[in-house]
Amino acid sequence: MIFDVPELARWRSGGSLVRIPPGLDVPLTPRVRRLIDTPAFRRLAQISQLGLVSLVYPAANHSRQEHSLGVYQVAIEFLARLSADERFAATIGPTDAERFLVAALLHDVGHWPFGHPIEDLRLPNVPDHELLAQRFITEGELAAAIREDWSLDPVDVSDLIAGRANDVEARLLSSLLSGPFDVDKVDYLMRDSLHAGVPYGRNFDRGRLVGSLCLNETGDALAITDKGKTAAEMMVFARYVMFSEVYWHHAVRSATAMLQRAVYLLQDHVNFGELQMLTEQPAIERLRAGAADGPDAELLSGLFGAKRRLYKRLSQYSYFEEPALYQRLARQPYAKLVDCAERLAAIISRELGIDIAAHEILIDAPPVELEVEFDVDVYFPKQNVYRRLGEVSPVVRTLAREQFDDYVKRVRLLVHPRLVSQLQRLPDLAEWLGEAVGRG
Amino acid sequence: MIFDVPELARWRSGGSLVRIPPGLDVPLTPRVRRLIDTPAFRRLAQISQLGLVSLVYPAANHSRQEHSLGVYQVAIEFLARLSADERFAATIGPTDAERFLVAALLHDVGHWPFGHPIEDLRLPNVPDHELLAQRFITEGELAAAIREDWSLDPVDVSDLIAGRANDVEARLLSSLLSGPFDVDKVDYLMRDSLHAGVPYGRNFDRGRLVGSLCLNETGDALAITDKGKTAAEMMVFARYVMFSEVYWHHAVRSATAMLQRAVYLLQDHVNFGELQMLTEQPAIERLRAGAADGPDAELLSGLFGAKRRLYKRLSQYSYFEEPALYQRLARQPYAKLVDCAERLAAIISRELGIDIAAHEILIDAPPVELEVEFDVDVYFPKQNVYRRLGEVSPVVRTLAREQFDDYVKRVRLLVHPRLVSQLQRLPDLAEWLGEAVGRG
Amino acid sequence: MIFDVPELARWRSGGSLVRIPPGLDVPLTPRVRRLIDTPAFRRLAQISQLGLVSLVYPAANHSRQEHSLGVYQVAIEFLARLSADERFAATIGPTDAERFLVAALLHDVGHWPFGHPIEDLRLPNVPDHELLAQRFITEGELAAAIREDWSLDPVDVSDLIAGRANDVEARLLSSLLSGPFDVDKVDYLMRDSLHAGVPYGRNFDRGRLVGSLCLNETGDALAITDKGKTAAEMMVFARYVMFSEVYWHHAVRSATAMLQRAVYLLQDHVNFGELQMLTEQPAIERLRAGAADGPDAELLSGLFGAKRRLYKRLSQYSYFEEPALYQRLARQPYAKLVDCAERLAAIISRELGIDIAAHEILIDAPPVELEVEFDVDVYFPKQNVYRRLGEVSPVVRTLAREQFDDYVKRVRLLVHPRLVSQLQRLPDLAEWLGEAVGRG
Amino acid sequence: MIFDVPELARWRSGGSLVRIPPGLDVPLTPRVRRLIDTPAFRRLAQISQLGLVSLVYPAANHSRQEHSLGVYQVAIEFLARLSADERFAATIGPTDAERFLVAALLHDVGHWPFGHPIEDLRLPNVPDHELLAQRFITEGELAAAIREDWSLDPVDVSDLIAGRANDVEARLLSSLLSGPFDVDKVDYLMRDSLHAGVPYGRNFDRGRLVGSLCLNETGDALAITDKGKTAAEMMVFARYVMFSEVYWHHAVRSATAMLQRAVYLLQDHVNFGELQMLTEQPAIERLRAGAADGPDAELLSGLFGAKRRLYKRLSQYSYFEEPALYQRLARQPYAKLVDCAERLAAIISRELGIDIAAHEILIDAPPVELEVEFDVDVYFPKQNVYRRLGEVSPVVRTLAREQFDDYVKRVRLLVHPRLVSQLQRLPDLAEWLGEAVGRG
Repeated sequence: MIFDVPELARWRSGGSLVRIPPGLDVPLTPRVRRLIDTPAFRRLAQISQLGLVSLVYPAANHSRQEHSLGVYQVAIEFLARLSADERFAATIGPTDAERFLVAALLHDVGHWPFGHPIEDLRLPNVPDHELLAQRFITEGELAAAIREDWSLDPVDVSDLIAGRANDVEARLLSSLLSGPFDVDKVDYLMRDSLHAGVPYGRNFDRGRLVGSLCLNETGDALAITDKGKTAAEMMVFARYVMFSEVYWHHAVRSATAMLQRAVYLLQDHVNFGELQMLTEQPAIERLRAGAADGPDAELLSGLFGAKRRLYKRLSQYSYFEEPALYQRLARQPYAKLVDCAERLAAIISRELGIDIAAHEILIDAPPVELEVEFDVDVYFPKQNVYRRLGEVSPVVRTLAREQFDDYVKRVRLLVHPRLVSQLQRLPDLAEWLGEAVGRG
Repeated sequence: MIFDVPELARWRSGGSLVRIPPGLDVPLTPRVRRLIDTPAFRRLAQISQLGLVSLVYPAANHSRQEHSLGVYQVAIEFLARLSADERFAATIGPTDAERFLVAALLHDVGHWPFGHPIEDLRLPNVPDHELLAQRFITEGELAAAIREDWSLDPVDVSDLIAGRANDVEARLLSSLLSGPFDVDKVDYLMRDSLHAGVPYGRNFDRGRLVGSLCLNETGDALAITDKGKTAAEMMVFARYVMFSEVYWHHAVRSATAMLQRAVYLLQDHVNFGELQMLTEQPAIERLRAGAADGPDAELLSGLFGAKRRLYKRLSQYSYFEEPALYQRLARQPYAKLVDCAERLAAIISRELGIDIAAHEILIDAPPVELEVEFDVDVYFPKQNVYRRLGEVSPVVRTLAREQFDDYVKRVRLLVHPRLVSQLQRLPDLAEWLGEAVGRG
Repeated sequence: MIFDVPELARWRSGGSLVRIPPGLDVPLTPRVRRLIDTPAFRRLAQISQLGLVSLVYPAANHSRQEHSLGVYQVAIEFLARLSADERFAATIGPTDAERFLVAALLHDVGHWPFGHPIEDLRLPNVPDHELLAQRFITEGELAAAIREDWSLDPVDVSDLIAGRANDVEARLLSSLLSGPFDVDKVDYLMRDSLHAGVPYGRNFDRGRLVGSLCLNETGDALAITDKGKTAAEMMVFARYVMFSEVYWHHAVRSATAMLQRAVYLLQDHVNFGELQMLTEQPAIERLRAGAADGPDAELLSGLFGAKRRLYKRLSQYSYFEEPALYQRLARQPYAKLVDCAERLAAIISRELGIDIAAHEILIDAPPVELEVEFDVDVYFPKQNVYRRLGEVSPVVRTLAREQFDDYVKRVRLLVHPRLVSQLQRLPDLAEWLGEAVGRG
Repeated sequence: MIFDVPELARWRSGGSLVRIPPGLDVPLTPRVRRLIDTPAFRRLAQISQLGLVSLVYPAANHSRQEHSLGVYQVAIEFLARLSADERFAATIGPTDAERFLVAALLHDVGHWPFGHPIEDLRLPNVPDHELLAQRFITEGELAAAIREDWSLDPVDVSDLIAGRANDVEARLLSSLLSGPFDVDKVDYLMRDSLHAGVPYGRNFDRGRLVGSLCLNETGDALAITDKGKTAAEMMVFARYVMFSEVYWHHAVRSATAMLQRAVYLLQDHVNFGELQMLTEQPAIERLRAGAADGPDAELLSGLFGAKRRLYKRLSQYSYFEEPALYQRLARQPYAKLVDCAERLAAIISRELGIDIAAHEILIDAPPVELEVEFDVDVYFPKQNVYRRLGEVSPVVRTLAREQFDDYVKRVRLLVHPRLVSQLQRLPDLAEWLGEAVGRG
């Protein structure tokens, strides 16, 4: 029975706890304590969850270690609830449950400093971070602990995290780990919101969402009952607001664009395989060391130097306001954005008769990868039917289709602060941008 | 200058305070204290804000007195913010501001027990509650206090509350008092949510919404700047969730339908003019006294008797699921709903060969009046343009047009609990309902 | 096993819930639902938890029904935790656990409107409220439900609530129900604080307190481990602040003194046995009906009439400031307080040459009954010793011995508001009071 | 008038804000923005507020930058309130207010990584951190900004922070900055509590405390009115709990003792003047580089290495339990603690016949410096008298005299984890410790 897993028996588990905001007591059995005291896990204490966001929300410097503990706590809640679901209990035994708990705790173990924005560049010499995760889990102290204390094969844990496993148990557990309403999002929306000091991601009735978890019709993925429909809508909405106000805040995107251009420029001077092994401050030092004195150094200094100096937003374009322009810039290879930005810098230099360096104008645009779709099956017990959430919720449908990738994620033109006063309100800017893009 | 109004100078106002959840210190000048100690205002301490909702959310028995204090506090915040808006400060002087504060504090003074559901019946002998408000404000102790302490004409206050005043100052203040983002909603969404014990209405970033308040293009109504767009979306969404899970919760609607049918039945045995003057418990006694021993008595006993006995939901129909049926029942005169329900009771009695009394089946349907539309002007200072919120927010557009009146407000078939087991899962129910409605 | 009790298996209990602030989901099995839908329990929905406090904290009008649901929820938490304690599990079986749950839910069923202040008068014709509880539990619908659904003897439940049972199981369960850290206080401190809108009673680390529960050395009472010592100190401190700022707020005591004098005056005109059966509003009507037109009517009108009119504090005396005076007035029979107050009124009338009616001056003083002592055993597992909390916590010792009954509970002189300006700052007041008391 | 200071006019200050938990909008005028974008201030973003605490409370890694913004926000609240106090307004003009705001924002600018525990060692070659603060403020970009934007002399700001200024204005402002209820504590108790995820420091009714601020009798220090007495007691209590459960948590003290011994050992291999200029991660690297391979390296590796390895508590002694022993170890020079610990290691090695290295046993004891006394004047307006808080509050007296330095701050014996099983429950341990100390 799942409830025999020691981590689920809070009051019987010996009582060791660790506290994380907002007042959560995360139960620590000795074998969990061993996992979190390994070098691979402790490394996460020095990698921030939100990277450049803390340049805009100064308190949002919480670590991936804290988040991982939070995800593990949500995983316990999910299991406790689902153990009362007959079909779940028939599919998932104690060993599966333990594999899931370990996977939840270690799901971020392959993350590295600024990994997301750098991976969005799709540079050839950046190793896949899944390899890093695999290495941490299947080698060294983590592997030993997983084998000895949990009687699990580290490869199985690694495969579950990577979504590679394919039996029905793994597919089901995988949908709890990474899907529209997974243990990761339940924690990070709340936690990022809490530390940023904003209410946006903290209001989705976690208790009710968890209370409504069930399986989909085919029994191989998470679903919710109709009792959880509104809670699900709240979580989709919370995620939208967090993207709008935090993750894709214009100043956060400005910092991201600066970092991306710098890394793009210095890509041949950094060993990314080594970089991935570092924690955040050493990684910053490594990047700055690779940059020498060029434009890349200047960009990195604006981000990480003694004096913060973020590029300013000159203009922005959403899918709805400027569909033609938007479509030519969104989801394009990064090199194209660089070309366009450099051409635009040249055009403006020429037209205004001033000197603008190639790296002083940046174009930020939505990356190739779309956000995971927020659709899930909703089970209506009275009618005994399953329907898609988007079908029964106009607001989810709208958020998913229109507002999210198209509204929140904008194309933005960013410039060095020294240029703002000169470039603001240029009547011909849109035309020049069109020209720069058009030749692309 | 507006800031000379004593109620706005918290630290200089003498320091008398009253505390209401969630930790708000409402400043009380002597002249405000006099208003809230009048019989007309104290009456609100014995009238609950949410009426029948406490049959479903037992803690939601907070009073209109508490809510009124909360609205007055929001009104102070609105004024403090808008006093920094040049156009507002040019239009609204101290006297206007004081008129607005008094109106905000007294805006609910004409409410009476279960007034909303009873007024939805549109019975001929129910006096308009605005007359009640007018009477309380322009006569007796309130009128004296308004004249003596505030140097205001009570009729002006009453007119402002009723939306009757028509100068530009009054139109502007009126939009603060009753509009898409008025002082009333800012308080009640939060307060109803807090007392019900649900998170739904408490997450709309009040500080940011208030911080973004400005005037519309013509200067005669409240608007928001683009900085407040997301906060406005959050409030619209919060309101949707509160309707879905609290105000239009199926069991709350069941209780409402029971009360409405009872009042409809006993309408000739109650003096509504007198009823409106009572507080909640005496009003209940008065209704039960008017009901004698008939079906109306039985219905009221299920609501207010020693033993709670709510009708059960047999089926429900939203605009999207059953447009034809929905449109024939939504926004119809109440008498028609009664006819249909009675015909349906007769049909089922006949078909199943059992005795069903006319009042044991109720049809609940959206009332004639639509919810106020949630649209407001959004000001974009960079471009110096004003646009409608619905234009720039797909999610607001969806909530306003589709999800709100059409999705949340459903047609429901409710039956006496003794009938549930017999009537559940009748294959011909929809057909019989169609027959009952069709002949209407 | 205790965990087989259906109410403890939240996720397996069928999932019916009721929500109360602050976001608690109280699980409702069908047999719990039946208990809370009885007349005896529903009566609590119309009796406020804090009585006269809402005259000072207007939002604190929450019901004993809501509190009872909260206590039941705490009882589940206590049981869940203690079921992991070997000695507890060896003593308390499922039937004991069920008896405790029912007792926790029904612990307030014998409360009646303003019962506490009226019982403090110790009038001969006021029946003991335990009789009322016993009657509600052992007769009628509650008794039937307890017998049929729970297979318990209602007398056993009633005895547990009254602390009459004397086997070791009952003594142990009784200490969970009524003791220094019982299920009642854990809920009411938090709940009263929440509704009053103050932070004072909401900060005692409930999770940690519950997590540290264990048994005392002899195994017949609740104790805490040293891990819970600070949480226990926090709860004692929270209780002190709630007494200081809410329960014994000077204006609350003024209202209490007014009510007590009124009831004292009209005691022969009210049938208290009948009064105890009423809910709050009818009980107020009954008292006012009994009062006719005399001083008692005037006092009640100031509390419950259209216009609030509370007596004002003229002076106050704590044990530390005025030990002699304090000791002659605290914990005295009520009749003596009345005599002193009347004598004082006569003295002042004579000295100032003005007319003061006998009931226009009231003396409020700590009642005979002391607050329960806040001492509990603390278990130190490393040393395997049990020590009293007061022994190991100077702050608890101070709060218990000095600050509580002696500091917070003051003797106060209260006068009709019409007299305030004349009686304030009388240089001879203390002397006159001494004279009035001295002759007592 | 103080209210003309732009930072106090939130709605008129242009509206730029930065958000920090818990939902505080810190207003940023351009001149404040310039201060926080200087290298000296941004350095605080990479220095954690609580240092080693995050080894125990993993989420408590918030920065001194965030705290400084919070203190600045509290400073605005203090000024807004006190500007309504006639005596304050007569003493403090706009220039003084601006000086105070700048000092509040910059009060931590001289802090350096692990400065507190290292300074407690009183090593000869560690420069006073006040010199560092003075240097940051009176030189470079901060000095320029203070002169140009605020028309203040940087030396005056620096003197105010250091408590060196001596005119009445400076003494008064200094008591707001550093005293029993200063702007620093109001922020850090709440903020440390929030990030640690504990409720302990977040419950002291900030609004009421601020609302009760006034001046002492002589007008040169902060005091509170009797309305704030309970809020002040709550803050003293909150501080006690934070010390007990966070700042002096036994595992935090273990980490502190390890760091102190390591620094003591490597003191001649580190340039502390340079160390003070570094942010936290580089400072850790510098210490570890100075340590080479000896015992100091081993201690630092247990704290900052890939694998956390904290010393375990073998026993502890409070003033009340072991007064003689306590008094011989508390508040002693650090070298004496080292001697005792080394002697104890030798004794145990000899007695048990095992090898214990000198650094494997540590003694942690309260440092020389006592906590600031929590006493303040309380003003009773009715009697027009000022009394000390400790006089009118037994609980504050107890916390201040007994519980705080004597109860919370214990003497602890800490050992390397490899020794725990052998050294636990040694019957002669206390005697051996006595022997080790006695020869000291």
